[in-house]
Amino acid sequence: VTGTIDDLGEFTLIDRIVARLGDAAAHDILVPPGDDAAAWATTVGASVATIDALAEGTHWRADTMTMTDVGWRAVAANVSDLAAMGADPRYLLVALALPADTPIADVDALTEGMMEACRAHGVRIAGGDIVRARSLLISVAAFGHVDVPDALLRRNGARPGDRVAVSGTPGAAAAGLALIEGSREHEPDAASLVRAHRRPRARTALGRNAIAAGVRAGMDISDGLVQDLEHIARASNVGIEVAAAQLPLAEAAVTLLGRREALDLALGGGEDFELVLCGEREALAGLDSHDPCVTLIGRVVAEHPGEVVVWTEDGAAYEPPRRGWDHARDSGERGAPAGAAR
Amino acid sequence: VTGTIDDLGEFTLIDRIVARLGDAAAHDILVPPGDDAAAWATTVGASVATIDALAEGTHWRADTMTMTDVGWRAVAANVSDLAAMGADPRYLLVALALPADTPIADVDALTEGMMEACRAHGVRIAGGDIVRARSLLISVAAFGHVDVPDALLRRNGARPGDRVAVSGTPGAAAAGLALIEGSREHEPDAASLVRAHRRPRARTALGRNAIAAGVRAGMDISDGLVQDLEHIARASNVGIEVAAAQLPLAEAAVTLLGRREALDLALGGGEDFELVLCGEREALAGLDSHDPCVTLIGRVVAEHPGEVVVWTEDGAAYEPPRRGWDHARDSGERGAPAGAAR
Repeated sequence: VTGTIDDLGEFTLIDRIVARLGDAAAHDILVPPGDDAAAWATTVGASVATIDALAEGTHWRADTMTMTDVGWRAVAANVSDLAAMGADPRYLLVALALPADTPIADVDALTEGMMEACRAHGVRIAGGDIVRARSLLISVAAFGHVDVPDALLRRNGARPGDRVAVSGTPGAAAAGLALIEGSREHEPDAASLVRAHRRPRARTALGRNAIAAGVRAGMDISDGLVQDLEHIARASNVGIEVAAAQLPLAEAAVTLLGRREALDLALGGGEDFELVLCGEREALAGLDSHDPCVTLIGRVVAEHPGEVVVWTEDGAAYEPPRRGWDHARDSGERGAPAGAAR
Repeated sequence: VTGTIDDLGEFTLIDRIVARLGDAAAHDILVPPGDDAAAWATTVGASVATIDALAEGTHWRADTMTMTDVGWRAVAANVSDLAAMGADPRYLLVALALPADTPIADVDALTEGMMEACRAHGVRIAGGDIVRARSLLISVAAFGHVDVPDALLRRNGARPGDRVAVSGTPGAAAAGLALIEGSREHEPDAASLVRAHRRPRARTALGRNAIAAGVRAGMDISDGLVQDLEHIARASNVGIEVAAAQLPLAEAAVTLLGRREALDLALGGGEDFELVLCGEREALAGLDSHDPCVTLIGRVVAEHPGEVVVWTEDGAAYEPPRRGWDHARDSGERGAPAGAAR
């Protein structure tokens, strides 16, 4: 495909995208894509809804991700926010802001990535908007459902005595990015980390299982494990203690980057669409039997409310690297793009 | 207020915005702003949802709108899409993409405008996201509800024999913009038109009343009356005929810009958050008694399916000006900003 979106009209471009989405576009709802708004039937319970924006240069760089990867990530990031509440993700709305010289092939690749991620996560796109803008930006809103509203995983649901568990291998996505930036992505063992950066998968089943198991607090760790645990500590007015030795580091990250760097990335790297959960030991242990991705890493305490302490293997408090939005004020040593922030 | 958003962290900025939104932030829903996602109780019926993006330089220019106006418009545009379905608008999610040097005062003004528009339209903000980006962009997703899903106003609901009605005075917003661009905004009579550009109001009551009156087809005319009627003509596979003489032009637009220009803007100007409705004459007439803003302007025919014909007062077919997305390929004579499109 050659040409830019300037060669197509807005509506031609929308028709093209909807056609290429295939069954990832929600054709069988009350009002499918193409009207002023989308509509679907509701049942008693609760709607859970979230919005995100991904900006070129901030959330991805053309040299570390293809447009297909970006499309995937835009979907997965929003689905992860619903998974983090324990909701069943259903429909997405997508707003694309595109410079006039955006190649049509880029929009096709973006669509392809969104379609793949929709299929992988069991969600569909119900509508959207396309506008021209000076820089490329993708905004996705996602809607899910829960039958029992009171059971939602909340940031304010942690209580002293709870244990803390995390899914997967935190830091894998950041390790993948570090390897790509270091031109090391083709080294043996790098593939799983690179994939964690380019094709992160949201933990939809885990959120639902956690609710069923009686877990009350959780969130995703897309801002970095320590920063996100701080959100829980503040919202719940509790302290959280994490044992670094118990963190499930990705073996490949330890091999390729060393244990210290792998630990830094696990604690502060961000962009992992894993979940951190706080609940009674039995609830979390029961979860583990359904989904062996869950590892106990710490506990909730009444002391130092609002604060997260990470204990290193030698018994000292770990000083986490700077992270999240504050990347922008760092000198870039973490490899963030110039002026980047989350 | 001095300083830029770079002086605040992301979460400080979010707290500031939520605090300034006051009761326009939805604090009393199941999960208010501040968690991974927002959640609210659902009842049986249908959810109606839409997303829009507004980009600086495309949807507004700093010299024709303040940031407060932009905040208002971002809310009103989305509420209008729900009104156009006959839905009861309820909650918004807002994603802000901000350059690092965005003054805090600009974000405050944006918040003020969103708050005012939320109050005016009876909606509340349930959540959001803030990211850094190279250009300023606001994406809003809006959610509404209908009790009777089958009654939604659809683009495909027009039938031959239906009459066509429009609310308000189409072209008023575009006339206001033309006056601002011509440095004529302070002329006598310009105020109502300038207000239509800067503070457009969505027709939420009208959409609901239209459903109750049995109207089946409708949409808002934010892309321009003729272009939006073409959407209905295509989706319903009908022809639509409009009598230019019956168009309710804004008196001030005729006085200040002349009848021909006022007519051009009414047919193709866009950015009016008015509704166009197609239904039986009695249904539309009954509506008029509730809401005297509605004027009959044409009819739906079986001939020329997919096409809209505007008959001028001398009996000739009117050639509408170019409009909508295609603005970008015009020479700019319509006053669109360089490179702008919708």
